[in-house]
Amino acid sequence: MTIVELIERKRDGGTFTSAEIHWLISTYTADEIPDYQMASMLMAVFLRGLNARELAAWTTEMMHSGEVLDLSGIEKRKIDKHSTGGVGDKVSIPLAPMVAACGIAVPMISGRGLGHTGGTLDKMETIPGLRTALDPAEFKEILGNVGMVMAGQSESIVPADRRMYALRDVTATVPSIDLISASIMSKKLAEDLDGLVLDVKVGTGAFMKHEAAARKLAETMVGIGRSHGTPVVALLTDMNQPLGRQIGNANEIRESIDVLNGNGPEDLVEIVLALGCEMLRLGDAAPDDATARSMLRDTISSGSAMEMFIETVIAQGGDPVVIESPDLLPTAREQWHLEASSSGYVTSCDALELGTAALRLGAGRATKEDDIDPGVGIELAAKYGDEVNAGEVLATVTYNDHAAFETARPMVERAYALGNSRPPDRPLVIGTVR
Amino acid sequence: MTIVELIERKRDGGTFTSAEIHWLISTYTADEIPDYQMASMLMAVFLRGLNARELAAWTTEMMHSGEVLDLSGIEKRKIDKHSTGGVGDKVSIPLAPMVAACGIAVPMISGRGLGHTGGTLDKMETIPGLRTALDPAEFKEILGNVGMVMAGQSESIVPADRRMYALRDVTATVPSIDLISASIMSKKLAEDLDGLVLDVKVGTGAFMKHEAAARKLAETMVGIGRSHGTPVVALLTDMNQPLGRQIGNANEIRESIDVLNGNGPEDLVEIVLALGCEMLRLGDAAPDDATARSMLRDTISSGSAMEMFIETVIAQGGDPVVIESPDLLPTAREQWHLEASSSGYVTSCDALELGTAALRLGAGRATKEDDIDPGVGIELAAKYGDEVNAGEVLATVTYNDHAAFETARPMVERAYALGNSRPPDRPLVIGTVR
Repeated sequence: MTIVELIERKRDGGTFTSAEIHWLISTYTADEIPDYQMASMLMAVFLRGLNARELAAWTTEMMHSGEVLDLSGIEKRKIDKHSTGGVGDKVSIPLAPMVAACGIAVPMISGRGLGHTGGTLDKMETIPGLRTALDPAEFKEILGNVGMVMAGQSESIVPADRRMYALRDVTATVPSIDLISASIMSKKLAEDLDGLVLDVKVGTGAFMKHEAAARKLAETMVGIGRSHGTPVVALLTDMNQPLGRQIGNANEIRESIDVLNGNGPEDLVEIVLALGCEMLRLGDAAPDDATARSMLRDTISSGSAMEMFIETVIAQGGDPVVIESPDLLPTAREQWHLEASSSGYVTSCDALELGTAALRLGAGRATKEDDIDPGVGIELAAKYGDEVNAGEVLATVTYNDHAAFETARPMVERAYALGNSRPPDRPLVIGTVR
Repeated sequence: MTIVELIERKRDGGTFTSAEIHWLISTYTADEIPDYQMASMLMAVFLRGLNARELAAWTTEMMHSGEVLDLSGIEKRKIDKHSTGGVGDKVSIPLAPMVAACGIAVPMISGRGLGHTGGTLDKMETIPGLRTALDPAEFKEILGNVGMVMAGQSESIVPADRRMYALRDVTATVPSIDLISASIMSKKLAEDLDGLVLDVKVGTGAFMKHEAAARKLAETMVGIGRSHGTPVVALLTDMNQPLGRQIGNANEIRESIDVLNGNGPEDLVEIVLALGCEMLRLGDAAPDDATARSMLRDTISSGSAMEMFIETVIAQGGDPVVIESPDLLPTAREQWHLEASSSGYVTSCDALELGTAALRLGAGRATKEDDIDPGVGIELAAKYGDEVNAGEVLATVTYNDHAAFETARPMVERAYALGNSRPPDRPLVIGTVR
């Protein structure tokens, strides 16, 4: 077997055996296939695709390119949630403690923001002292003691993906549903989960702009889980406008605390409950959706989710005082209000424009090396479908750097559109793939 | 403009402007695009293709990556012939002097054998002292003085192709009709020709196994010539069996001398005449095919083609004594005869098997670095359609290395098949594209 023969096969629409995929990924990981050959292979895979069997083998081989967590000492069912990324998507932060408070172990491994999408790690690190770089032993210890943990991915997990992603990034082979699915699932399956809930975002602010592609991605990932023997459920959820009313890192921690205190915005709470239901059901903690919802709501009213969150913050070295006094979290110095130019209904509150504006303000990263500004952000006073009067505040931008604000301002202005009649309702949860 | 944007465009089926192709090829030639990005681009081009306008620009840019010959001092019309490669294909060797003897300048730039196909340079170099590595000044001088020249491609001609071909070879992007066409035509157009005749081989021993693909290749190259303003005619010719009766380097020089002496095998002579007619007509040396054929035949009967060949050999440093006494050319020590196991008709004399057998004997190169053995070869006593008696010799293998012969022998045996009835005639010239 040679790499050229394998590239030829895929180029001509053929398929690989599992042994061939094992050879390909392990040889690449051992640095014995040069990048120019892997680049040609990845473009052939991009354009020809992988079938379900190939994809399962590809994912398994990626997973085994590095360390696989061993959470076998933990008795509880271990369920994680993964989002494909959106704007204002702080769902993980209230969701993990709510689900953990119901008796499910939540070993949550999250990412950083890149481009217009935010990242859970960046948000969590606005809590003074909180560490997200945990080694596997510490990760497992906190999960066992507290019932949940929120960390970044260790360098030793799926190293093949890190290398392959860097190559895909410079060879225009990133947006392949097959390669994206294998990348996400290899990392998630390396967490030794009993089940996984996927939040596949659809809309202007999402990686997938259209439902058909998002559904394909969801089906592909659910299929990989099935092949691996790990139950996976995917919800397709709306990302045409940001989730909740806050964009920005400290802003989104404050809004997450609101959810845990029972004061969260309706859309955010609804997505948290919908995803939480699936997690409880995968974890055999609830027999049906109604019970699951009721259990999750109880974690708010009883304060058990907030307790779980505070315990986690403390276990990860964070100062819990900011949870009780969120005003102590970073804020920016300057404010600017976007006001409605006329009376009417909000017909657009565009996630991509608002996410990109937040990125320009310093809330996100254009490249992986950028630093973020934790206090800047955008608060959305009005969202899609809201009725507003002329002069009413639609959004408030908080910023530190005036030049950055000047770049962001036209994006915020473009994000909003007003109309004379109420726009049609848009469902938050568009579909479910299981 | 970034290379990633261009790869994305081609990946998604888009097209490039001529300015973008200029940037791509010139930046790659300047070593400012890494091979892994070019590999991804080449696979995208392989699978998505280039349209006629893109292909013309790609070819022109490849051509301008290096030196372009200036043959403007030469008054005669300059016409070359290029073959896509076959087994026993010594056509250039008698053809060039026959056409040159009709008053056409033939600046023939040839290649070396690779794989099962032979190369004109390897054959010519079996003539003692003959040099094929000529610098542009020497090339032009011999062409001007003698009327023809047979040389290898200078390193300074189309350097982008050398580098790109090396990358294509290891990234499974060689057999793209578009990339092959651009590669061949960029080198040929760099010769400052007034016209070009292509011999596109079709059959088991050819790069193109089927007529449809060969026709596509021919049409693509003729189209590039048209875009460039250089008339190109392509003949599709049969390569299911070797051309003539000799395979091997010195063997094929001997058979070429036979043609120039009027004793050439019928099929080889017919192909030489067919291609020669097109060259004379492109060179405005003959008004119609009948006249052209008659002129070409006259170069044999008058001895003018042989004189032209001897002058060329002398001009390139070769010892002309071997032309008059071809027995002085290298031969191998051992002989083996394949005999007919029964009486009947030859229904197969397979070019690929015989070419591969000759390669194993040492007549060709498995890799560019291999040395060749000039004396080994295969003589075909019987060819497709011939009636033979049991025990009659079908082919004679001449060899030096016994182990190599043992590898080659089963291939020679497999090449031949006998049947009870005469197989259908196969045309030598399958079609013409102009």
